Amino acid sequence: MRPVKRTPMWPVLTREQCRAADRYAIEELGIPGVVLMENAGRNAADHIEGWLRRLARKQTSRDPATGAQVCVVCGKGNNGGDGFVIARHLSNRGYTVAVDLAAEPASLTGDAAINYRIAEQMGIPIHALRDSASLDHASQRWRGAMVIVDALLGTGFAGSVREPLASIIDRINALHADANLEPAAPPEAGPHPLIVAVDVPSGLDADSGDLSGPAVRAHHTITFLAAKTGYTKKTARAYVGRLVVADIGAPTALILERLGITPPR
Amino acid sequence: MRPVKRTPMWPVLTREQCRAADRYAIEELGIPGVVLMENAGRNAADHIEGWLRRLARKQTSRDPATGAQVCVVCGKGNNGGDGFVIARHLSNRGYTVAVDLAAEPASLTGDAAINYRIAEQMGIPIHALRDSASLDHASQRWRGAMVIVDALLGTGFAGSVREPLASIIDRINALHADANLEPAAPPEAGPHPLIVAVDVPSGLDADSGDLSGPAVRAHHTITFLAAKTGYTKKTARAYVGRLVVADIGAPTALILERLGITPPR
Repeated sequence: MRPVKRTPMWPVLTREQCRAADRYAIEELGIPGVVLMENAGRNAADHIEGWLRRLARKQTSRDPATGAQVCVVCGKGNNGGDGFVIARHLSNRGYTVAVDLAAEPASLTGDAAINYRIAEQMGIPIHALRDSASLDHASQRWRGAMVIVDALLGTGFAGSVREPLASIIDRINALHADANLEPAAPPEAGPHPLIVAVDVPSGLDADSGDLSGPAVRAHHTITFLAAKTGYTKKTARAYVGRLVVADIGAPTALILERLGITPPR
Repeated sequence: MRPVKRTPMWPVLTREQCRAADRYAIEELGIPGVVLMENAGRNAADHIEGWLRRLARKQTSRDPATGAQVCVVCGKGNNGGDGFVIARHLSNRGYTVAVDLAAEPASLTGDAAINYRIAEQMGIPIHALRDSASLDHASQRWRGAMVIVDALLGTGFAGSVREPLASIIDRINALHADANLEPAAPPEAGPHPLIVAVDVPSGLDADSGDLSGPAVRAHHTITFLAAKTGYTKKTARAYVGRLVVADIGAPTALILERLGITPPR
């Protein structure tokens, strides 16, 4: 008798295959990186908006005057860049949004810097996560939010998480109703924010599914292009939560075919 | 007794106000033009996909083997650029798409050129509308399509339409069931494609609502940022059809407020 296997809903790619697909989109098809980032962030914003609407229907205890409805916690790489795009689109749609930045603004580069500047010019509040005092303040604000977006580390991350990111991840995880339990299901109601990871829960190795330190335990992970191999590992499940795959405005099936990567199914 | 006036559903701006808002988004907020074009085109693709799905449920007589489901007729400006983005997103989603280009590829510039190149590299068929023979072929193909997208001229257009655009517009209008009648309602079924104008029906002056030559009679017009003053004129109604306003990824309300333009309603 063959074992009953849970078939993945999404194509599953390695980090290297995802990088090759990104490169193909940019270099061969000529899609600007900032356009891929825009589609990624906007798709993520669409999903988050759906969850916000559902939460708004069920949560009546939240006081909207105590801070932003959505806190986007951004790192300095392209994952943070996706976060700035998410912040802009949700703000455009009337949600109150704040950014927590775990990097020096001057250290941002490329498309992430472009999108940081837009968020700043729009007047979206941007809080620096500089020291333990600012982290204390941030985690107070996070408690009042409906959604926390983890845009700290992307699928390029491997190895062990360094400070201050390790402490930030711990504080995000402390938002769970029971910090020691897996987030079995997203909060339907109650005082605990929904935690949404962008591309990969920060601290998780997207390729291996391993972690060598703290990693964000997300209720939902919105990943781009395809699921990553690490997400199929049993160890990763408690961190990834419910997975959705969003497109980046590029013709994924065509790219994978041209690269000779097993087509999605 | 006061007359009962049909209140417009969308904010209404002049061409100059729209230009100022675009400029503010690009120059003050730092949103790259190619990102605004991406959001505009993708929003238009979302609407068109909705109409395609509705048509697919009702139309059983169309032979999908006889050409593209969607023909995007592009001019050389940014309106054509929006068209290339629409073509890419609909192609990504599995629709068969072709582009008809009323310009020399070498004459395209800026964001339109970027998006033309992507469509070309993706292998989307691009037909040159060079002479009356190629226009004859195009209108044959258009008859078999479910949707014709008019991305020839944008809201910047004023004056009279020159050749070959005048002939192209005439051929698009000839697709209507009765070429002499207003398109009272979108085709629910039958052999006539749905005609969708991007930003403005080509040939119509978006500011005044006047025309001094042929103009596309669209079933739907997807315009960006806000409705244009010309669309409120009675003469324009038969050309604009049903209007939808789509965003361009920029914070419209904020921009209009900062520019001191009467805020949207």
